[in-house]
Amino acid sequence: MDLKALYDLTSGLYVVSAKDEGRDVGCVVNTVLQTTASPLTISVCINKDNYTNTCIKKSGEFVISVLSQTVKNTLISTFGFKSSKDCNKFDDFKHAYTNAGNPYLLEGTSAYLQAKVIQSLDIFTHTIFIAEVNEAEKLNTEAVLTYAYYHQVIKGTTPPKASAYQQTPKAENNQEEKYVCCICGYTYPGSPADFNAEAADYKCPVCGVGKDRFRRE
Amino acid sequence: MDLKALYDLTSGLYVVSAKDEGRDVGCVVNTVLQTTASPLTISVCINKDNYTNTCIKKSGEFVISVLSQTVKNTLISTFGFKSSKDCNKFDDFKHAYTNAGNPYLLEGTSAYLQAKVIQSLDIFTHTIFIAEVNEAEKLNTEAVLTYAYYHQVIKGTTPPKASAYQQTPKAENNQEEKYVCCICGYTYPGSPADFNAEAADYKCPVCGVGKDRFRRE
Repeated sequence: MDLKALYDLTSGLYVVSAKDEGRDVGCVVNTVLQTTASPLTISVCINKDNYTNTCIKKSGEFVISVLSQTVKNTLISTFGFKSSKDCNKFDDFKHAYTNAGNPYLLEGTSAYLQAKVIQSLDIFTHTIFIAEVNEAEKLNTEAVLTYAYYHQVIKGTTPPKASAYQQTPKAENNQEEKYVCCICGYTYPGSPADFNAEAADYKCPVCGVGKDRFRRE
Repeated sequence: MDLKALYDLTSGLYVVSAKDEGRDVGCVVNTVLQTTASPLTISVCINKDNYTNTCIKKSGEFVISVLSQTVKNTLISTFGFKSSKDCNKFDDFKHAYTNAGNPYLLEGTSAYLQAKVIQSLDIFTHTIFIAEVNEAEKLNTEAVLTYAYYHQVIKGTTPPKASAYQQTPKAENNQEEKYVCCICGYTYPGSPADFNAEAADYKCPVCGVGKDRFRRE
Protein backbone atom coordinates (compact mmCIF):
# COMPACT_ATOMS: atom_id res chain seq x y z
CA MET A 1 0.00 0.00 0.00
CA ASP A 2 1.42 3.34 -1.09
CA LEU A 3 0.64 5.91 1.65
CA LYS A 4 1.68 8.75 -0.67
CA ALA A 5 -1.76 8.32 -2.29
CA LEU A 6 -3.22 9.83 0.89
CA TYR A 7 -1.30 13.07 0.30
CA ASP A 8 -3.53 13.70 -2.71
CA LEU A 9 -6.71 14.12 -0.63
CA THR A 10 -7.43 17.86 -0.57
CA SER A 11 -8.52 19.69 2.59
CA GLY A 12 -8.57 23.10 4.23
CA LEU A 13 -7.41 24.11 7.70
CA TYR A 14 -9.84 25.30 10.35
CA VAL A 15 -10.15 26.09 14.02
CA VAL A 16 -13.13 24.27 15.55
CA SER A 17 -14.23 25.96 18.77
CA ALA A 18 -16.84 25.64 21.51
CA LYS A 19 -17.73 26.73 25.04
CA ASP A 20 -16.55 24.86 28.13
CA GLU A 21 -18.68 26.15 30.98
CA GLY A 22 -17.84 29.77 30.23
CA ARG A 23 -14.31 29.18 28.90
CA ASP A 24 -13.44 29.33 25.18
CA VAL A 25 -11.84 26.20 23.72
CA GLY A 26 -10.71 25.21 20.23
CA CYS A 27 -8.23 23.27 18.10
CA VAL A 28 -6.99 23.02 14.52
CA VAL A 29 -8.58 20.42 12.21
CA ASN A 30 -8.42 19.71 8.46
CA THR A 31 -11.59 17.62 8.45
CA VAL A 32 -14.56 19.87 7.66
CA LEU A 33 -16.93 19.10 4.79
CA GLN A 34 -20.38 20.15 3.67
CA THR A 35 -22.47 16.96 3.89
CA THR A 36 -25.95 18.01 2.69
CA ALA A 37 -27.33 21.15 1.06
CA SER A 38 -30.91 20.97 2.36
CA PRO A 39 -31.00 21.01 5.31
CA LEU A 40 -27.57 22.61 5.37
CA THR A 41 -25.25 20.30 7.31
CA ILE A 42 -21.48 20.04 7.74
CA SER A 43 -19.29 17.40 9.36
CA VAL A 44 -16.07 17.64 11.33
CA CYS A 45 -13.84 14.81 12.53
CA ILE A 46 -11.95 15.39 15.82
CA ASN A 47 -9.61 13.18 17.85
CA LYS A 48 -11.22 11.95 21.08
CA ASP A 49 -8.11 13.08 22.98
CA ASN A 50 -8.67 16.69 21.92
CA TYR A 51 -10.27 18.59 24.80
CA THR A 52 -12.52 20.42 22.29
CA ASN A 53 -14.09 17.06 21.36
CA THR A 54 -15.22 16.53 24.97
CA CYS A 55 -16.63 20.08 25.14
CA ILE A 56 -18.62 19.69 21.90
CA LYS A 57 -20.07 16.41 23.19
CA LYS A 58 -21.33 18.35 26.23
CA SER A 59 -22.49 21.59 24.57
CA GLY A 60 -23.80 20.11 21.30
CA GLU A 61 -22.58 23.12 19.32
CA PHE A 62 -19.39 24.28 17.62
CA VAL A 63 -18.03 27.00 15.36
CA ILE A 64 -15.69 26.55 12.40
CA SER A 65 -13.29 29.46 11.74
CA VAL A 66 -11.97 29.00 8.18
CA LEU A 67 -8.26 29.85 8.33
CA SER A 68 -6.82 32.10 5.61
CA GLN A 69 -3.31 32.51 4.21
CA THR A 70 -2.82 35.58 6.44
CA VAL A 71 -2.86 33.41 9.57
CA LYS A 72 0.03 33.92 12.00
CA ASN A 73 2.28 30.94 12.75
CA THR A 74 1.68 31.53 16.45
CA LEU A 75 -2.06 31.04 15.93
CA ILE A 76 -1.46 27.64 14.30
CA SER A 77 1.04 26.61 16.96
CA THR A 78 -1.32 27.67 19.77
CA PHE A 79 -4.47 26.06 18.39
CA GLY A 80 -2.67 23.12 16.75
CA PHE A 81 -0.01 22.14 19.26
CA LYS A 82 -1.31 23.15 22.73
CA SER A 83 -4.28 21.88 24.72
CA SER A 84 -7.29 23.99 25.76
CA LYS A 85 -7.12 22.09 29.03
CA ASP A 86 -3.91 23.96 29.90
CA CYS A 87 -4.43 27.48 28.50
CA ASN A 88 -6.98 29.95 27.13
CA LYS A 89 -6.00 29.78 23.47
CA PHE A 90 -8.23 32.67 22.36
CA ASP A 91 -6.60 35.18 24.75
CA ASP A 92 -3.83 36.22 22.36
CA PHE A 93 -5.92 36.47 19.19
CA LYS A 94 -8.69 38.78 18.00
CA HIS A 95 -12.01 36.99 18.35
CA ALA A 96 -15.73 37.55 18.69
CA TYR A 97 -18.80 35.54 19.68
CA THR A 98 -21.76 34.14 17.74
CA ASN A 99 -25.32 34.94 18.81
CA ALA A 100 -25.27 31.68 20.76
CA GLY A 101 -22.11 32.80 22.59
CA ASN A 102 -19.53 30.55 20.93
CA PRO A 103 -16.09 32.00 20.12
CA TYR A 104 -14.68 32.43 16.60
CA LEU A 105 -11.50 34.04 15.28
CA LEU A 106 -11.35 37.48 13.67
CA GLU A 107 -7.74 37.24 12.45
CA GLY A 108 -6.28 34.86 9.87
CA THR A 109 -9.87 33.80 9.21
CA SER A 110 -11.99 34.32 6.09
CA ALA A 111 -15.39 33.04 7.30
CA TYR A 112 -17.08 31.27 10.19
CA LEU A 113 -19.94 28.79 10.48
CA GLN A 114 -21.78 27.82 13.66
CA ALA A 115 -23.55 24.47 13.75
CA LYS A 116 -25.68 22.38 16.11
CA VAL A 117 -24.77 18.70 16.41
CA ILE A 118 -27.51 16.35 15.15
CA GLN A 119 -25.55 13.07 15.04
CA SER A 120 -22.14 11.81 15.97
CA LEU A 121 -20.22 8.68 15.11
CA ASP A 122 -17.19 7.17 16.86
CA ILE A 123 -14.48 5.97 14.47
CA PHE A 124 -11.66 4.37 16.47
CA THR A 125 -9.55 7.34 17.70
CA HIS A 126 -11.89 10.04 16.34
CA THR A 127 -15.49 11.30 16.45
CA ILE A 128 -17.35 12.57 13.38
CA PHE A 129 -19.87 15.25 14.36
CA ILE A 130 -22.68 15.96 11.86
CA ALA A 131 -24.25 19.34 12.52
CA GLU A 132 -26.81 21.72 11.07
CA VAL A 133 -25.45 25.17 10.24
CA ASN A 134 -27.43 27.91 12.02
CA GLU A 135 -25.19 30.97 11.64
CA ALA A 136 -22.56 31.79 9.00
CA GLU A 137 -20.67 34.84 7.83
CA LYS A 138 -18.05 35.57 5.20
CA LEU A 139 -15.61 37.96 6.92
CA ASN A 140 -13.35 39.05 4.04
CA THR A 141 -11.92 37.96 0.68
CA GLU A 142 -8.63 36.54 1.97
CA ALA A 143 -7.45 33.35 0.21
CA VAL A 144 -8.24 30.29 2.30
CA LEU A 145 -5.44 28.22 3.84
CA THR A 146 -5.38 24.74 2.34
CA TYR A 147 -3.60 21.83 3.95
CA ALA A 148 -1.38 21.62 0.84
CA TYR A 149 -0.42 25.33 1.15
CA TYR A 150 0.37 24.82 4.84
CA HIS A 151 2.79 22.00 4.01
CA GLN A 152 4.28 23.31 0.76
CA VAL A 153 4.57 27.05 1.49
CA ILE A 154 4.56 27.41 5.27
CA LYS A 155 6.45 24.08 5.67
CA GLY A 156 4.13 23.21 8.55
CA THR A 157 3.85 19.87 10.32
CA THR A 158 0.97 17.72 11.55
CA PRO A 159 0.40 16.86 15.22
CA PRO A 160 0.08 13.14 16.11
CA LYS A 161 -3.62 13.48 17.06
CA ALA A 162 -4.64 14.66 13.56
CA SER A 163 -6.65 12.44 11.19
CA ALA A 164 -3.98 13.00 8.55
CA TYR A 165 -0.97 12.34 10.78
CA GLN A 166 0.55 9.90 8.29
CA GLN A 167 0.53 12.63 5.68
CA THR A 168 3.45 14.47 7.28
CA PRO A 169 6.11 14.83 4.57
CA LYS A 170 9.36 13.13 5.44
CA ALA A 171 12.80 14.61 4.86
CA GLU A 172 13.86 13.69 1.34
CA ASN A 173 17.02 12.02 2.41
CA ASN A 174 16.36 10.01 5.54
CA GLN A 175 20.07 9.24 5.91
CA GLU A 176 20.91 12.86 6.58
CA GLU A 177 20.55 14.34 10.07
CA LYS A 178 18.16 17.27 10.50
CA TYR A 179 17.30 19.79 13.18
CA VAL A 180 13.71 19.36 14.38
CA CYS A 181 11.64 21.74 16.54
CA CYS A 182 10.82 20.08 19.90
CA ILE A 183 7.62 22.09 20.25
CA CYS A 184 5.80 21.61 16.96
CA GLY A 185 7.85 19.03 15.07
CA TYR A 186 8.92 21.37 12.25
CA THR A 187 11.94 19.98 10.39
CA TYR A 188 14.53 22.58 9.40
CA PRO A 189 14.88 22.09 5.62
CA GLY A 190 18.65 22.69 5.39
CA SER A 191 21.61 20.69 6.68
CA PRO A 192 22.78 20.83 10.32
CA ALA A 193 25.57 23.17 9.13
CA ASP A 194 22.96 25.49 7.56
CA PHE A 195 20.99 25.44 10.81
CA ASN A 196 24.04 26.32 12.87
CA ALA A 197 24.77 29.21 10.49
CA GLU A 198 21.30 30.74 11.10
CA ALA A 199 21.29 34.01 13.10
CA ALA A 200 21.00 33.72 16.89
CA ASP A 201 17.47 35.16 16.77
CA TYR A 202 16.25 32.54 14.23
CA LYS A 203 12.74 31.40 15.12
CA CYS A 204 10.78 28.28 14.17
CA PRO A 205 8.55 29.44 11.25
CA VAL A 206 5.65 27.33 12.56
CA CYS A 207 5.53 27.89 16.33
CA GLY A 208 7.93 30.78 16.82
CA VAL A 209 10.32 29.28 19.40
CA GLY A 210 14.08 29.97 19.26
CA LYS A 211 17.05 27.89 18.04
CA ASP A 212 17.56 26.39 21.51
CA ARG A 213 14.31 24.45 21.18
CA PHE A 214 15.56 22.49 18.14
CA ARG A 215 17.21 19.09 18.50
CA ARG A 216 19.38 17.19 16.03
CA GLU A 217 17.74 13.94 14.87
CA MET B 1 -27.05 33.45 7.29
CA ASP B 2 -24.40 34.19 4.65
CA LEU B 3 -24.11 31.13 2.38
CA LYS B 4 -20.93 32.51 0.80
CA ALA B 5 -19.16 31.30 3.97
CA LEU B 6 -19.71 27.76 2.63
CA TYR B 7 -17.61 28.56 -0.47
CA ASP B 8 -14.55 28.76 1.80
CA LEU B 9 -14.64 25.06 2.73
CA THR B 10 -11.84 23.42 0.75
CA SER B 11 -12.25 20.08 -1.02
CA GLY B 12 -10.89 18.00 -3.87
CA LEU B 13 -12.74 16.28 -6.71
CA TYR B 14 -12.87 12.51 -7.00
CA VAL B 15 -14.59 9.68 -8.83
CA VAL B 16 -15.95 7.13 -6.36
CA SER B 17 -16.50 3.79 -8.06
CA ALA B 18 -17.70 0.26 -7.32
CA LYS B 19 -18.93 -2.98 -8.91
CA ASP B 20 -22.58 -3.60 -9.73
CA GLU B 21 -22.87 -7.33 -10.36
CA GLY B 22 -20.10 -7.32 -12.96
CA ARG B 23 -20.71 -3.79 -14.28
CA ASP B 24 -18.48 -0.79 -13.39
CA VAL B 25 -20.24 2.18 -11.80
CA GLY B 26 -19.05 5.53 -10.44
CA CYS B 27 -19.77 9.22 -9.91
CA VAL B 28 -18.03 12.48 -9.06
CA VAL B 29 -17.89 13.62 -5.41
CA ASN B 30 -16.02 16.35 -3.51
CA THR B 31 -16.54 14.73 -0.11
CA VAL B 32 -13.56 12.49 0.65
CA LEU B 33 -11.53 12.90 3.85
CA GLN B 34 -9.04 10.89 5.85
CA THR B 35 -10.81 10.19 9.16
CA THR B 36 -8.25 8.21 11.19
CA ALA B 37 -4.57 7.41 10.73
CA SER B 38 -4.46 4.09 12.61
CA PRO B 39 -6.30 2.10 11.45
CA LEU B 40 -6.23 4.01 8.17
CA THR B 41 -9.80 5.05 7.37
CA ILE B 42 -11.41 7.50 4.96
CA SER B 43 -14.96 8.76 4.59
CA VAL B 44 -17.03 9.68 1.55
CA CYS B 45 -20.47 11.31 1.47
CA ILE B 46 -22.74 10.34 -1.47
CA ASN B 47 -26.31 11.32 -2.37
CA LYS B 48 -28.77 8.45 -1.86
CA ASP B 49 -30.13 9.08 -5.38
CA ASN B 50 -26.73 8.35 -6.92
CA TYR B 51 -26.78 4.82 -8.31
CA THR B 52 -23.20 4.32 -7.03
CA ASN B 53 -24.48 4.77 -3.45
CA THR B 54 -26.83 1.78 -3.87
CA CYS B 55 -24.03 -0.33 -5.34
CA ILE B 56 -21.61 0.48 -2.47
CA LYS B 57 -24.30 -0.46 0.06
CA LYS B 58 -24.52 -3.88 -1.66
CA SER B 59 -20.82 -4.55 -2.33
CA GLY B 60 -19.37 -2.92 0.83
CA GLU B 61 -16.34 -1.66 -1.09
CA PHE B 62 -15.39 1.37 -3.19
CA VAL B 63 -12.45 3.02 -4.89
CA ILE B 64 -11.55 6.71 -4.89
CA SER B 65 -9.81 7.98 -8.04
CA VAL B 66 -8.24 11.34 -7.13
CA LEU B 67 -8.86 13.61 -10.13
CA SER B 68 -5.96 15.75 -11.40
CA GLN B 69 -5.82 19.01 -13.36
CA THR B 70 -5.24 17.03 -16.57
CA VAL B 71 -8.77 15.59 -16.42
CA LYS B 72 -10.84 15.91 -19.60
CA ASN B 73 -14.11 17.88 -19.41
CA THR B 74 -15.89 14.89 -20.94
CA LEU B 75 -14.77 12.72 -18.00
CA ILE B 76 -16.30 15.18 -15.53
CA SER B 77 -19.49 15.54 -17.55
CA THR B 78 -19.83 11.74 -17.88
CA PHE B 79 -19.13 10.88 -14.24
CA GLY B 80 -20.70 14.06 -12.83
CA PHE B 81 -23.80 14.60 -14.92
CA LYS B 82 -24.92 11.16 -16.17
CA SER B 83 -26.19 8.11 -14.27
CA SER B 84 -24.48 4.72 -14.12
CA LYS B 85 -27.98 3.25 -14.35
CA ASP B 86 -28.16 4.42 -17.99
CA CYS B 87 -24.63 3.96 -19.33
CA ASN B 88 -21.25 2.33 -18.73
CA LYS B 89 -19.31 5.44 -17.76
CA PHE B 90 -15.88 3.76 -17.75
CA ASP B 91 -16.16 2.62 -21.40
CA ASP B 92 -14.71 5.82 -22.87
CA PHE B 93 -11.88 6.32 -20.40
CA LYS B 94 -8.63 4.49 -19.62
CA HIS B 95 -9.14 2.45 -16.49
CA ALA B 96 -7.84 -0.57 -14.58
CA TYR B 97 -8.96 -2.80 -11.72
CA THR B 98 -7.82 -3.21 -8.12
CA ASN B 99 -6.86 -6.66 -6.80
CA ALA B 100 -10.43 -6.96 -5.51
CA GLY B 101 -11.77 -6.23 -9.02
CA ASN B 102 -13.07 -2.67 -8.53
CA PRO B 103 -12.56 -0.14 -11.35
CA TYR B 104 -10.41 3.01 -11.10
CA LEU B 105 -9.40 5.64 -13.62
CA LEU B 106 -5.98 5.78 -15.29
CA GLU B 107 -6.43 9.19 -16.95
CA GLY B 108 -6.92 12.58 -15.28
CA THR B 109 -6.15 10.77 -12.04
CA SER B 110 -3.14 11.15 -9.72
CA ALA B 111 -3.81 8.35 -7.20
CA TYR B 112 -6.38 5.78 -6.16
CA LEU B 113 -7.46 4.29 -2.84
CA GLN B 114 -9.63 1.22 -2.32
CA ALA B 115 -11.52 0.87 0.94
CA LYS B 116 -13.87 -1.56 2.70
CA VAL B 117 -16.93 -0.04 4.38
CA ILE B 118 -16.95 -0.47 8.17
CA GLN B 119 -19.78 1.92 9.08
CA SER B 120 -22.31 4.09 7.31
CA LEU B 121 -24.56 6.90 8.47
CA ASP B 122 -27.64 8.35 6.79
CA ILE B 123 -27.76 12.17 6.81
CA PHE B 124 -31.03 13.30 5.21
CA THR B 125 -30.33 13.14 1.43
CA HIS B 126 -26.86 11.59 1.74
CA THR B 127 -24.95 8.63 3.20
CA ILE B 128 -21.54 8.92 4.82
CA PHE B 129 -19.51 5.74 4.32
CA ILE B 130 -16.56 5.18 6.67
CA ALA B 131 -14.13 2.66 5.22
CA GLU B 132 -10.76 1.10 5.92
CA VAL B 133 -8.20 1.61 3.14
CA ASN B 134 -6.82 -1.72 1.91
CA GLU B 135 -5.12 -0.78 -1.36
CA ALA B 136 -3.62 2.53 -2.49
CA GLU B 137 -1.29 3.74 -5.22
CA LYS B 138 0.13 7.08 -6.31
CA LEU B 139 -0.02 6.99 -10.11
CA ASN B 140 1.90 10.14 -11.09
CA THR B 141 2.88 13.63 -9.92
CA GLU B 142 0.05 15.54 -11.64
CA ALA B 143 -1.40 18.43 -9.59
CA VAL B 144 -4.68 17.41 -7.98
CA LEU B 145 -7.97 18.99 -9.05
CA THR B 146 -9.47 21.00 -6.21
CA TYR B 147 -13.10 22.06 -6.12
CA ALA B 148 -11.90 25.70 -6.15
CA TYR B 149 -9.79 25.11 -9.29
CA TYR B 150 -12.74 23.41 -10.98
CA HIS B 151 -14.92 26.48 -10.37
CA GLN B 152 -12.36 29.24 -10.85
CA VAL B 153 -10.29 27.90 -13.74
CA ILE B 154 -12.46 25.33 -15.52
CA LYS B 155 -15.63 27.37 -14.73
CA GLY B 156 -17.40 24.12 -13.91
CA THR B 157 -20.79 23.76 -12.24
CA THR B 158 -22.23 21.54 -9.52
CA PRO B 159 -25.03 19.01 -10.11
CA PRO B 160 -28.12 19.29 -7.87
CA LYS B 161 -27.40 15.96 -6.12
CA ALA B 162 -24.01 17.15 -4.79
CA SER B 163 -23.44 17.90 -1.09
CA ALA B 164 -22.15 21.34 -2.08
CA TYR B 165 -24.96 22.20 -4.50
CA GLN B 166 -25.51 25.60 -2.85
CA GLN B 167 -21.90 26.45 -3.46
CA THR B 168 -22.44 27.01 -7.19
CA PRO B 169 -21.20 30.53 -7.91
CA LYS B 170 -23.87 32.84 -9.27
CA ALA B 171 -23.37 35.26 -12.18
CA GLU B 172 -22.04 38.50 -10.72
CA ASN B 173 -24.85 40.58 -12.15
CA ASN B 174 -28.08 38.70 -11.67
CA GLN B 175 -29.99 41.28 -13.69
CA GLU B 176 -28.14 40.37 -16.86
CA GLU B 177 -29.33 37.47 -19.01
CA LYS B 178 -26.88 34.65 -19.60
CA TYR B 179 -26.64 31.55 -21.79
CA VAL B 180 -26.66 28.36 -19.72
CA CYS B 181 -25.85 24.79 -20.84
CA CYS B 182 -28.95 22.59 -20.56
CA ILE B 183 -26.85 19.48 -19.99
CA CYS B 184 -24.45 20.42 -17.21
CA GLY B 185 -25.62 23.86 -16.06
CA TYR B 186 -22.44 25.71 -17.17
CA THR B 187 -23.07 29.48 -17.41
CA TYR B 188 -21.39 31.17 -20.39
CA PRO B 189 -19.34 33.95 -18.76
CA GLY B 190 -19.88 36.63 -21.47
CA SER B 191 -23.02 38.49 -22.55
CA PRO B 192 -25.68 36.96 -24.85
CA ALA B 193 -24.13 39.00 -27.69
CA ASP B 194 -20.72 37.46 -26.94
CA PHE B 195 -22.30 34.00 -26.94
CA ASN B 196 -23.98 34.58 -30.29
CA ALA B 197 -20.65 35.75 -31.70
CA GLU B 198 -18.95 32.43 -30.76
CA ALA B 199 -18.03 30.18 -33.73
CA ALA B 200 -20.65 27.64 -34.86
CA ASP B 201 -18.49 24.78 -33.51
CA TYR B 202 -18.25 26.30 -29.98
CA LYS B 203 -18.56 23.59 -27.36
CA CYS B 204 -19.50 23.73 -23.68
CA PRO B 205 -16.12 23.65 -21.86
CA VAL B 206 -17.55 21.39 -19.15
CA CYS B 207 -19.61 18.74 -20.93
CA GLY B 208 -18.70 19.27 -24.58
CA VAL B 209 -22.15 19.78 -26.14
CA GLY B 210 -22.71 22.34 -28.93
CA LYS B 211 -24.23 25.86 -28.94
CA ASP B 212 -27.71 24.46 -29.68
CA ARG B 213 -27.86 22.93 -26.18
CA PHE B 214 -27.57 26.36 -24.47
CA ARG B 215 -30.65 28.32 -23.42
CA ARG B 216 -30.94 32.00 -22.57
CA GLU B 217 -31.94 32.56 -18.92
